[in-house]
Amino acid sequence: MPARPLITLLTDFGTADTYAGQMKGVIAGICPDATVIDLTHAVLPQQVAQGAFLLETALDAFPTGTIHVAVVDPGVGTDRAGLLIRTADRVFIGPDNGLLSCALPEEARPDALRRIPLPRGVDATVLPPELGRPVSSTFHGRDIFAVAAARLAAGDEAITHGTAAGGMLAVPPFRATVRGRREMLDGHIVHIDRFGNLVTTVHASQLRRAAVTGERPVIHVGSERIEGFVRTYGQGAGLVALIGSSGYLEVAEVNGSAAVRLGARIGQDVRVELVR
Amino acid sequence: MPARPLITLLTDFGTADTYAGQMKGVIAGICPDATVIDLTHAVLPQQVAQGAFLLETALDAFPTGTIHVAVVDPGVGTDRAGLLIRTADRVFIGPDNGLLSCALPEEARPDALRRIPLPRGVDATVLPPELGRPVSSTFHGRDIFAVAAARLAAGDEAITHGTAAGGMLAVPPFRATVRGRREMLDGHIVHIDRFGNLVTTVHASQLRRAAVTGERPVIHVGSERIEGFVRTYGQGAGLVALIGSSGYLEVAEVNGSAAVRLGARIGQDVRVELVR
Amino acid sequence: MPARPLITLLTDFGTADTYAGQMKGVIAGICPDATVIDLTHAVLPQQVAQGAFLLETALDAFPTGTIHVAVVDPGVGTDRAGLLIRTADRVFIGPDNGLLSCALPEEARPDALRRIPLPRGVDATVLPPELGRPVSSTFHGRDIFAVAAARLAAGDEAITHGTAAGGMLAVPPFRATVRGRREMLDGHIVHIDRFGNLVTTVHASQLRRAAVTGERPVIHVGSERIEGFVRTYGQGAGLVALIGSSGYLEVAEVNGSAAVRLGARIGQDVRVELVR
Repeated sequence: MPARPLITLLTDFGTADTYAGQMKGVIAGICPDATVIDLTHAVLPQQVAQGAFLLETALDAFPTGTIHVAVVDPGVGTDRAGLLIRTADRVFIGPDNGLLSCALPEEARPDALRRIPLPRGVDATVLPPELGRPVSSTFHGRDIFAVAAARLAAGDEAITHGTAAGGMLAVPPFRATVRGRREMLDGHIVHIDRFGNLVTTVHASQLRRAAVTGERPVIHVGSERIEGFVRTYGQGAGLVALIGSSGYLEVAEVNGSAAVRLGARIGQDVRVELVR
Repeated sequence: MPARPLITLLTDFGTADTYAGQMKGVIAGICPDATVIDLTHAVLPQQVAQGAFLLETALDAFPTGTIHVAVVDPGVGTDRAGLLIRTADRVFIGPDNGLLSCALPEEARPDALRRIPLPRGVDATVLPPELGRPVSSTFHGRDIFAVAAARLAAGDEAITHGTAAGGMLAVPPFRATVRGRREMLDGHIVHIDRFGNLVTTVHASQLRRAAVTGERPVIHVGSERIEGFVRTYGQGAGLVALIGSSGYLEVAEVNGSAAVRLGARIGQDVRVELVR
Repeated sequence: MPARPLITLLTDFGTADTYAGQMKGVIAGICPDATVIDLTHAVLPQQVAQGAFLLETALDAFPTGTIHVAVVDPGVGTDRAGLLIRTADRVFIGPDNGLLSCALPEEARPDALRRIPLPRGVDATVLPPELGRPVSSTFHGRDIFAVAAARLAAGDEAITHGTAAGGMLAVPPFRATVRGRREMLDGHIVHIDRFGNLVTTVHASQLRRAAVTGERPVIHVGSERIEGFVRTYGQGAGLVALIGSSGYLEVAEVNGSAAVRLGARIGQDVRVELVR
């Protein structure tokens, strides 16, 4: 736990409505000393996979003990479960719909997963004693997940004593598919950032063999072909490829937007050919 | 007062400009220990009624002692007054133009309203000793309202000793009109959230009689007709109606956007018919 | 230094990605007690001059001791230097590309400029011992500038002991050009805010002579001609001119948007004629 408890929020609530602010109000009421940091509230509405990717790629910046709350929750109020997951160095809280699945380290033990007690049935204002607050059927981000995070931040471990979840829903991990004898990586664009950089599912760890054996990577996107990597956005000219700060292969346009130049869209194929 | 003073901000300043950040800088200079939470800065420019609605519907999430600053202020620098209103459990600060009127509980006593001393006349940099900082004619959010909130958060009650306001401007309360012998509620869409949910002026409290007498609600919006309520967004299919987390009737589209499906706009009629 | 260390962030990262959140995570890990305030993350991608203007015009709201981090950094990872600049009452941290140049007071001494140690060459994960964290080639905002700010906020002065920079890149100061015998000020629109107000490079200090000599200002923008100033946005009717809260001449439309009415764009000429 850091000197002051640290809670992050990632949602699809946007910031035009007051939903994110309401979550912070609830947290401040329970644990006034917590620092709350917005990862983003601009996940596209109900796009669980995009949320999972943005959560996974932001984690390394946060210190041990951080509590990460994530809410992209098309199933709110239905019988999907709520999860609280404690790993060696952090805690994740959110719905059991795959949103949290990519953030867990591979060595995470199944018994780290706990179900958060949720109200059931048609009563929209059940008060589970564990939460100590009326719960709406439509805003578990505020009434359940923010409450659980704040309770834990305030030192109340009871909230972590839910029943063992046994397992969780997962979205497929963000990795390229390896084809042939590892000479081709089939990935796709998973995120386009504000600069028009195309973030792909090809992870740096999948390119290690090439680095060792001296194979030359050739990146294919649309009808374009990019040879080799640069180290940073300001190097080279035109379209370039590089390993971004998130650890994934990105296609960028020097002093421009690769997304605009290529008319790129989320989901579009990006292949890496490893040439001897 | 919570363990750390808590101040919320609601404005129409957006977040592309530094205006909201400047308010926080002023607050940090006066009361470094205050926690500042953004409710929203995306009220449409100068739309006082929208601001009043977003303020009212966010309040319940905040603990006793919170200081709520709201600035949607087309009359800045003219002779509209500034208000500081202390209710049983919170404080509101902002211009006297209706923005704060819906947030007050019905039992609020008129003597809770105080005018904040404001500079007058053509001098743009008058220094009212109560505020201790030059005041621009164009940015009372920073120079008057943020200062007043921070002073109060820092324990300086002098700022609350302005003259009694006697009354305040009010926007009409957000409630549907009851027609006939309560068999019809005439409301309208007051807010469309990021998910395309249509938030209406029909308040849950106006539907209690139906719940007691067993009348069946039928919701009319555009040429559509929705029978009964669901409990949450993920229930049913197509267009549904439900009581949202704000306490108002909402029209939603399961796994979609009601706003897009209906081409809905703010101000559009929504009627609830109570059928025996 | 204020009671709690205060750090501001100004970037072109937007808030849809998690980049700004990651900077805050790094800061919280090093100096959990720091308050972090967003000035804006909506500088247009890589528009250094716009960032310089928004930084300069926000400073007055912040208390002595504030640490201002600014990152609009098309040259990230190339051999552009990083700067840490200590003035009499604040500290600036960011790339040496002009972004910080307008924020410095005129009396700032060159020896206040220090280079922040940066990694060189092709290794994307060099670990400079001064920073204590791996450094990516593409995200110095997180890995170098946020780290430096947090270290300093935590009381570690070592980070300020870089080599003297000797000088820095500068963008031209935001001032109108004086023509003839000061009877004409040639400026341009440098920023359009959320309300459609046109903020110009004509600074209040350039209009003092007119105030003293009684000359009458006539503002020319597009084919429009505005006589004299009003004191605030709610005064007068139609197009008006006034000194905004930033200290610069603004053209506004009462109860409307000057940007929409005039079809105005950044860079467009605005002239002030001083008429006897």
